[in-house]
Amino acid sequence: MTDYDDAIALRPDGSTWVGELSDDWAIGEAVNGGLLMAMATTAVSSTSQAQGGHADPLSFSGVFLSPGAAGPVTVEPQILRTGRRMTTAQVRVTQDQDGQEVERLRALLTLGDLATYAEPVRKTLAAPSIPAAEECVSAREAPPSALTKSGFLQRWDLRMDPATVGWAVGRPSGAGLMRGWLRLADERDFDAVSLLLALDAFPPVAFDLGSSGWVPTVEFTGYVRGIPAPGWLQVTLSATHVAGGLLNEDCDIWDSTGRLVAHSRQLASARFAD
Amino acid sequence: MTDYDDAIALRPDGSTWVGELSDDWAIGEAVNGGLLMAMATTAVSSTSQAQGGHADPLSFSGVFLSPGAAGPVTVEPQILRTGRRMTTAQVRVTQDQDGQEVERLRALLTLGDLATYAEPVRKTLAAPSIPAAEECVSAREAPPSALTKSGFLQRWDLRMDPATVGWAVGRPSGAGLMRGWLRLADERDFDAVSLLLALDAFPPVAFDLGSSGWVPTVEFTGYVRGIPAPGWLQVTLSATHVAGGLLNEDCDIWDSTGRLVAHSRQLASARFAD
Repeated sequence: MTDYDDAIALRPDGSTWVGELSDDWAIGEAVNGGLLMAMATTAVSSTSQAQGGHADPLSFSGVFLSPGAAGPVTVEPQILRTGRRMTTAQVRVTQDQDGQEVERLRALLTLGDLATYAEPVRKTLAAPSIPAAEECVSAREAPPSALTKSGFLQRWDLRMDPATVGWAVGRPSGAGLMRGWLRLADERDFDAVSLLLALDAFPPVAFDLGSSGWVPTVEFTGYVRGIPAPGWLQVTLSATHVAGGLLNEDCDIWDSTGRLVAHSRQLASARFAD
Repeated sequence: MTDYDDAIALRPDGSTWVGELSDDWAIGEAVNGGLLMAMATTAVSSTSQAQGGHADPLSFSGVFLSPGAAGPVTVEPQILRTGRRMTTAQVRVTQDQDGQEVERLRALLTLGDLATYAEPVRKTLAAPSIPAAEECVSAREAPPSALTKSGFLQRWDLRMDPATVGWAVGRPSGAGLMRGWLRLADERDFDAVSLLLALDAFPPVAFDLGSSGWVPTVEFTGYVRGIPAPGWLQVTLSATHVAGGLLNEDCDIWDSTGRLVAHSRQLASARFAD
């Protein structure tokens, strides 16, 4: 069992699923939202299949209601509709806090058979031109202080294009652009579900705009468009409209064959110095 | 009362809201999804404000479970969380069908005070270069047959850039790109809520890729980024990845002062000839 599989492991408990959020996937005190998304999607997919529905996530739209904390977690899927080509579902992720159920994440998903949506490709976006992974800057080269409170960062082998990493040494480009390579540290290959985790794995693009500190996600919508081939992912992040401390963070992901396999937009809140 | 205000009018009925879907906003047999989104957002905003929450939509993520039909409709908001800066909510839109409640749309919303997110603008996308509205092609010039079953089309003054309208005369460019001007036919100015309707008002961008027929929305996520100034909107539609009959349709909207006020992505299903 890989770190990742261990982290999203769930067991059935009546009509819900229960698991454990781990500090290993935390940034500061909060467990990464992407891990909650992967866990929620796993539960929805299992429940969907048990009810004769579809398996692969096509879209995931979620709102983050409170930060996930290390400890037990409950995932409650609800299948809304099963059609011939797609299944639609809702999911709630909650934790017990002093005897009270506190909701972390609520999301709407559509599921389908991704294999049927692979061909023909009529239009797509080409993978970016990035120096080879070994010529990129590893997140492991980050100053130790930055790593102290991030179990999450250690879960990844993340290599940034040197051209988009100035923010890490106090020189954000102001362009709101990042790109690089991504792999799980345990080298587990990505599947359709873990692409949702990958869409939220990079540092916030707000850092390249001069922001620092926590960048909470208000809303996240990701689309999985293909089953990824084994190996490295190529990732780009960009922001289109940054105003009044709110920005969109758009992520595009290509697999090792250069095929676009996922894209997302999130609305995030960021603090800027001036 | 304008056509639009009449169409989204709701009255409270306990904790839910009731209204009437009109054929006037239908495309074929189905009432336009954007109208359902505007209606749902109106109900959520009213309920949020009554509970001390926020008024303006910031994000809207919805799944369309079945096509809306002319007749009575029920909108059921549920406030999930009210914070200092934002309110998070869920909403269900249902209709009675032979004594059964049938769900049309389920969505997650965040609301806030849009005035606080206007300045400073740190990065944005410039409005497109489009010929003046009077030099563009009006949707009213469409052949009568195309209008017969579309009450919806008659609700708009929609002017397409001549450079992106080839699909209407059987010559789709294949680029998956449309742009033009948009106004409500009754000249009612847009507000934050009706921008959600505007994000879904153009013909499907799939038409410019050679598709024809109905292009059902699987999932729609829209973000409102500013309160629009009175007057025409500028709208662009584009698709990034079109494969296996699934595509993303991205919409960007600028107000009459050239400010980006809304953007969206939807996952849509389209049929292509070959």
